[in-house]
Amino acid sequence: MEESKQPIDVGEYLFRRLREVGVQHIHGLPGDFNLQALDYIPKVGLKWVGDANELNAGYSADGYARIKGISALVTTFGVGELSAINAIAGSFAEFVPVVHIVGCPSTVSQRNGMLLHHTLGNGDFRVFSEIGRQISCSTAILSHPEQIAHQIDEVIRECYIQSRPGYIMLPTDMVQKKVEGARLKTPLDMTFPPNNPEVEDYCLNAICKHVEAAKTPIILVDACAIRHRALKETHDLIAATGLPTYVTPMSKGAVDETIPNYGGVYAGSGSSKEVRERVESADLVFTIGSIQSDFNTTGFTYRVSQLNTIDFHSTYIRVKYSEYPGLRMNGVISKLAKRIQDGKLKIASPEPLKAPDNQSVEGELQTKGHDITHAYLWPRLGRWFREGDIIITETGTAEFGIITTRFPAKARAINQVLWGSIGYATGACQGAALAAIDEAAETKKEPSRVVLWTGEGSFQLTAQTVSTMLRNNLTPIIFVINNNGYTIERWIHGMEADYNDVQPWRYTQIPHVFGAKEGQAKSYSVSTKDELEKLLGDEQFNTGKFLRFVEVIMPLKDAPVGLKLTAEASARTNTRLD
Amino acid sequence: MEESKQPIDVGEYLFRRLREVGVQHIHGLPGDFNLQALDYIPKVGLKWVGDANELNAGYSADGYARIKGISALVTTFGVGELSAINAIAGSFAEFVPVVHIVGCPSTVSQRNGMLLHHTLGNGDFRVFSEIGRQISCSTAILSHPEQIAHQIDEVIRECYIQSRPGYIMLPTDMVQKKVEGARLKTPLDMTFPPNNPEVEDYCLNAICKHVEAAKTPIILVDACAIRHRALKETHDLIAATGLPTYVTPMSKGAVDETIPNYGGVYAGSGSSKEVRERVESADLVFTIGSIQSDFNTTGFTYRVSQLNTIDFHSTYIRVKYSEYPGLRMNGVISKLAKRIQDGKLKIASPEPLKAPDNQSVEGELQTKGHDITHAYLWPRLGRWFREGDIIITETGTAEFGIITTRFPAKARAINQVLWGSIGYATGACQGAALAAIDEAAETKKEPSRVVLWTGEGSFQLTAQTVSTMLRNNLTPIIFVINNNGYTIERWIHGMEADYNDVQPWRYTQIPHVFGAKEGQAKSYSVSTKDELEKLLGDEQFNTGKFLRFVEVIMPLKDAPVGLKLTAEASARTNTRLD
Repeated sequence: MEESKQPIDVGEYLFRRLREVGVQHIHGLPGDFNLQALDYIPKVGLKWVGDANELNAGYSADGYARIKGISALVTTFGVGELSAINAIAGSFAEFVPVVHIVGCPSTVSQRNGMLLHHTLGNGDFRVFSEIGRQISCSTAILSHPEQIAHQIDEVIRECYIQSRPGYIMLPTDMVQKKVEGARLKTPLDMTFPPNNPEVEDYCLNAICKHVEAAKTPIILVDACAIRHRALKETHDLIAATGLPTYVTPMSKGAVDETIPNYGGVYAGSGSSKEVRERVESADLVFTIGSIQSDFNTTGFTYRVSQLNTIDFHSTYIRVKYSEYPGLRMNGVISKLAKRIQDGKLKIASPEPLKAPDNQSVEGELQTKGHDITHAYLWPRLGRWFREGDIIITETGTAEFGIITTRFPAKARAINQVLWGSIGYATGACQGAALAAIDEAAETKKEPSRVVLWTGEGSFQLTAQTVSTMLRNNLTPIIFVINNNGYTIERWIHGMEADYNDVQPWRYTQIPHVFGAKEGQAKSYSVSTKDELEKLLGDEQFNTGKFLRFVEVIMPLKDAPVGLKLTAEASARTNTRLD
Repeated sequence: MEESKQPIDVGEYLFRRLREVGVQHIHGLPGDFNLQALDYIPKVGLKWVGDANELNAGYSADGYARIKGISALVTTFGVGELSAINAIAGSFAEFVPVVHIVGCPSTVSQRNGMLLHHTLGNGDFRVFSEIGRQISCSTAILSHPEQIAHQIDEVIRECYIQSRPGYIMLPTDMVQKKVEGARLKTPLDMTFPPNNPEVEDYCLNAICKHVEAAKTPIILVDACAIRHRALKETHDLIAATGLPTYVTPMSKGAVDETIPNYGGVYAGSGSSKEVRERVESADLVFTIGSIQSDFNTTGFTYRVSQLNTIDFHSTYIRVKYSEYPGLRMNGVISKLAKRIQDGKLKIASPEPLKAPDNQSVEGELQTKGHDITHAYLWPRLGRWFREGDIIITETGTAEFGIITTRFPAKARAINQVLWGSIGYATGACQGAALAAIDEAAETKKEPSRVVLWTGEGSFQLTAQTVSTMLRNNLTPIIFVINNNGYTIERWIHGMEADYNDVQPWRYTQIPHVFGAKEGQAKSYSVSTKDELEKLLGDEQFNTGKFLRFVEVIMPLKDAPVGLKLTAEASARTNTRLD
């Protein structure tokens, strides 16, 4: 092996590469097998978050990556990494790039099969990395210094390109080994591999033929357009065509919902009548990054024929039933938009749209005792959210409620419609709020406002995330719906069952107990529309530089229509016999 | 297949079997793939705990099993089971029988590869059960009704006999399938398979030869004597021989520490001088269920020659260097004790012992500002604990401090010296407190008092367990050492590093925020010896029927000697090069 020109420590190399690709805060917990590595974080100008537990850290890293593009999580061998695994599996399922670095026993200890703490006691030091490999797109066991720089580069790049977690197992005795620092002069190539131009053109011609014949085409943008970084191309296509454009529950925030050709959310039977009619009668549907999972389609209730569909994905394009494997959507969409833009391809002009207007369902303001109902709440919030907000909704009533909210411009949304792990949203909120600050520091703008809507059952799983928010001086607005239990479960099975109840907490005292300093947080509790209206009209609340924690008391059985329909479909799927 | 004589539902069969083997409370969280199964819990007379999150539920199930003999945990597919996996891995490492039941999508959904929530989105429905298999002694995927009763029996029995977790994957459409209920008339055979008597006698004779020659034999009882249910035989041997008897950090509570031949805790260099001298000079050491892991041996500092050692294990016996595979210790120890008891085998009479006396190190009461120090605390607690207490100590200062405490009679201890996952102890405390009540109902006695000592860094990981304690009307005494961070980590690496700090919480308000009703809980904060003495002398505190939550403020760098020595050894192991 050649002599290093600029030898630097493995720990430094790793964190400098992470910094280079946009990570500014490292999530995680200390553990004796990662402590030496943590010493490098401040040395390279990064910051340590110091989460309260690993699952929360993993969720937060996921939220950070969704805003900042990529994130990193450091845990310790066995106990730490396994605690985070549900979060990492969620990142895998939902295409979120999180680099998971696991500090592990030294290569010497491993070779000698030592009976160390945090092992299963059977001398197997690979069992956890093998588990990690199941939910990572790239895995590196660092044990030979001459390979380490290359391994680190590979994991970070694959993680970013495939938009999925990467796993790095870092033994204590490797942290200070020397690697070639001169490599850092060449930034990692984070660009997508280009499509084969011949295949791309062939596919594009097939698409154009159908475009010319179509009379009522529409665009349906889904989550993979966000996750596989095809939003710019998607926006170009929307602008070039002016076609009616729809999103899905999972892709809320993918497009500007204030444009005149925004049509609303399509989710099969869970969509509004107008949306369903327009989408399902279209003679050509461009789906971009479609994920037709149960909760994204109100239980598989799409009524769109594949014979009318062109699907754009990150690894293939499908034109009706013809598949073009190996093509990434970005290049194809971009060329399609350009052809239309340049007048080389004609596309039908659409009829005007009746878009959702954030008006609450009639009569809702007159509910008994002025209860806060979902039918009232979500359109109302559409008039409260502000340009640029980051809006996080938990699996459950919030995730389905937000479907009926029309967003302001530049709003971004975070949800976990596919993986659906309750507790996620509070964790993700912490990461998103941190990422918003890091993003603002780069763009020299005001940080986005970060708003979380969760339920109290979900909140209880990861409540101590609020402590980490306070520790890092984050100031999101947290709404916790208190409706006495797991409402989504009630609608699926066991409406009155006590297993769907939760322990009643004194929610408004949460920030205080988790250490909020004077002026750092403020709590509220609202149980009527009047109280909520007053709060939403309070400018100090809306723009304050403190953490806002709102308990929103709502009726036990009330739920958004989309939730009810999806829950019914789930109950059927769970029990059907063929 | 024969017609069933007494067809009953799979859900009922499963929970009736669990009840039969001693489970009375089922831990877990609801999730749509397990809701139907949960309906059977009250039907068969079991109770649902309703934990706040799955990791806590898993830790609590572990604690319950350590007191009640076995436990059960119900989670939901993917998100739920993965959240619990660190707890289950701990149960695997530490030999604790927890039956983990995972409600999963229907066999039909699996066969059709449906894109469901809680999946990785790739149609792979086996990835999580394959992960679960890595940390289970027995795994069953229930999908053919005619096999299910047998599969359930097998997992429960193996789980109990091997004293490790078992995994049951229960699809929604199998819950109401019929199985043969007549099987339930025959209770599960939970006895250990007997040793081959010829091998057993051969081994016993080899042992006796060395016993007769020994002049200064001693007994060292370790954790596997507890976990593999060899305590009765161990106690018989101790009584029959009158030999000096020692425990390890991991086996605290295994023997009656008030007997005259109790010698103290042996942990290599972390032991007291008297203990070290006596154990290390013994010419014969009976080890029973030894686990020589780093934290159980102060970093591998035993000085006991294998040439002087007879090791009793659950799967083999080792006499000096001769191994006898396939022999379980229970039978061999029992016969050995009987031979001595019956006067057929002579054993040397021991010199009198100077046992640890729970006297605090001299001068400790005069520390600056009367700070509560570890040197003072742990012997002091030895005089405060009461007969029958269940004492839970978290990995960190408490786990090492308790080594210097001499227990009252019938005390039981819970720790996690091998797996060492911080946050565990608070979870385990909930399970132990529940098991103590279930146990008392069976024996018609007062429930054991349950006492937890944890650190605030560890407490933060699983704090919401206190909510579950309140929900289940549990009344443990919880001591949280507040010393500004992860002290064990500080001693390993980064004494002043801010990654070893934690967010300061207002600990005394924890029970209130988690919903304690009037009179259900009381909080305390003590920061001097005087204050602690006053509290420990308060009879209402000592015997009250309410949850007691004590913040114990202690100096940042203070730690038990055993922790310091172990931490130094760990730091060396982490960085050494061969």
